[in-house]
Amino acid sequence: MNFSEDELLEAIRRVLSGAGPEVVVGPGDDAAVLAPLIGELLITTDVLVEGVHFERGLTSARDLGYKAVVVNLSDVAAMAGSPRAAVCALTLSDGPDVAWTMELFGGMREACDEHALWLVGGDLSRGGVTSIAVTVTGEVAPGHAVLRSGAKPGDRLVVTGSLGGSAAGLRASKDRRSWSEDERDAIRRHFRPSARVGEAKVLARLGATAMMDVSDGLALDLSRLMSASGVGARLMLRDVPVHPAAMLDEALGGGEDYELLSALPDGAVDIARTELADAFGTPLAEIGVIAEGALVAVAGDGSERPLDPLGWDHFAR
Amino acid sequence: MNFSEDELLEAIRRVLSGAGPEVVVGPGDDAAVLAPLIGELLITTDVLVEGVHFERGLTSARDLGYKAVVVNLSDVAAMAGSPRAAVCALTLSDGPDVAWTMELFGGMREACDEHALWLVGGDLSRGGVTSIAVTVTGEVAPGHAVLRSGAKPGDRLVVTGSLGGSAAGLRASKDRRSWSEDERDAIRRHFRPSARVGEAKVLARLGATAMMDVSDGLALDLSRLMSASGVGARLMLRDVPVHPAAMLDEALGGGEDYELLSALPDGAVDIARTELADAFGTPLAEIGVIAEGALVAVAGDGSERPLDPLGWDHFAR
Repeated sequence: MNFSEDELLEAIRRVLSGAGPEVVVGPGDDAAVLAPLIGELLITTDVLVEGVHFERGLTSARDLGYKAVVVNLSDVAAMAGSPRAAVCALTLSDGPDVAWTMELFGGMREACDEHALWLVGGDLSRGGVTSIAVTVTGEVAPGHAVLRSGAKPGDRLVVTGSLGGSAAGLRASKDRRSWSEDERDAIRRHFRPSARVGEAKVLARLGATAMMDVSDGLALDLSRLMSASGVGARLMLRDVPVHPAAMLDEALGGGEDYELLSALPDGAVDIARTELADAFGTPLAEIGVIAEGALVAVAGDGSERPLDPLGWDHFAR
Repeated sequence: MNFSEDELLEAIRRVLSGAGPEVVVGPGDDAAVLAPLIGELLITTDVLVEGVHFERGLTSARDLGYKAVVVNLSDVAAMAGSPRAAVCALTLSDGPDVAWTMELFGGMREACDEHALWLVGGDLSRGGVTSIAVTVTGEVAPGHAVLRSGAKPGDRLVVTGSLGGSAAGLRASKDRRSWSEDERDAIRRHFRPSARVGEAKVLARLGATAMMDVSDGLALDLSRLMSASGVGARLMLRDVPVHPAAMLDEALGGGEDYELLSALPDGAVDIARTELADAFGTPLAEIGVIAEGALVAVAGDGSERPLDPLGWDHFAR
């Protein structure tokens, strides 16, 4: 590439959205400055790495930028927080050109605009592999973050939307053929996932005792939630909302669905289902109950087995 | 490597320091939660990439972790801010093992402990190249951040410490021979730079009109400061505090010194020099004066030439 870092940064700045009144100093200084928050501060970071989380030949730069922000928004959502500001540390291999990089930031801006999130700064570097490390800050009223650790025996286990669609969409996208409507939807879910920011606030208001986003597959993430809460659960496999293009294995182990997994007090489930449907058109499925002891999967015929946390683990080989 | 992501995360958690009262939720949930700040929020991110910013054969994991935090602390310092919390998105190639990774986090903890900074979360991924993206948040009293944009004609241009040491240290470290005391100091500056957090607060209190850290070489960073302030400057080359192991070119273009470059009102320089020496043992050099017009370098014989921003630019090839 034949441009300087400052020239690229200036071009990127033009793609970024204008700054709201809470942005005191945006991109271009040593650090960004934001007006004082009222609530507690949330911070989360997630990196997308070429060859691991994406292939440049399979995803558009715009979708990739969008997703790099959404995976972080999903973590803020899972705490019942409101997104505020983001920074991005971008490493570019020799492959991407200026146009690709502009599209990447265009996609980041799309995701930011949807959630009133300000992209206030970043770092730009060369490197052997392209990677996008986004950090998002958010805000939550003091004491109102919903952690993974509060689930109690008797609580109902619920999940938003459907699971396995992302894995099924990635699989379908690699087949060079025509796709069904369900497969098209699954492909969208893989490349353009949604962050359930509004849904999380409803679940929190209705008394969610624990919440997290499903990023590594239901089995692994559920085992993490149970472990953090010091409880077990009975997972009813036939109630898991498997995406119509996916298989049950993809719902349990596929990852990257970015749905909310939550423990709700018995009695709140029906109200939550109605509110999520009315306000967001998002389904809510009751998939089990929190219990003492182990994490057990109950099959359709009533047989039980321990649930293996067979999710996506970058280090298990 | 034969360990799971959760096992490595648990091992890392044991290396991290305990959490202070301002950390409501530390590592392990979807996002970290911090008690409400009083002041404005600062955010900055910087990534160190293998093959670009470091070679694993040349640097220890501990030094690398330390530096990955310090380069961000330096950005918070340059705004006259106080560091609060950090997150780290770590990508590991096949090379690093568990011991290396633990040492990396040990070094990060060292830098955090020195500045009462809490490492509250992160993300861990596989990838073709090892990279460490750290984001640091900080705090500053409302309206008291020192930007790059406030320098005014007549202000004195000052810089802390000395310049070129980092470049000279990297050069010396690649020579397999015995080193002089100055070279050893330069090597330390490259692998274990300091963040001038306390010094920045003194300069801000004494009325600094503009400030930034020198990360890409004095020539490039000074041109950025001038550009942001819409002014020029006369840089007195003979007054540039060149590290005793370095050459003038390394001071102007070497980068990674993480000293503070600031514009001070005439009259504040002597007080600032005394305070920095007394409180931190840090020298302060007056290297020029802000002026209308261009950025001019004045040689020892009085001859003048435009200063080329010949600093470290990842994209200029």
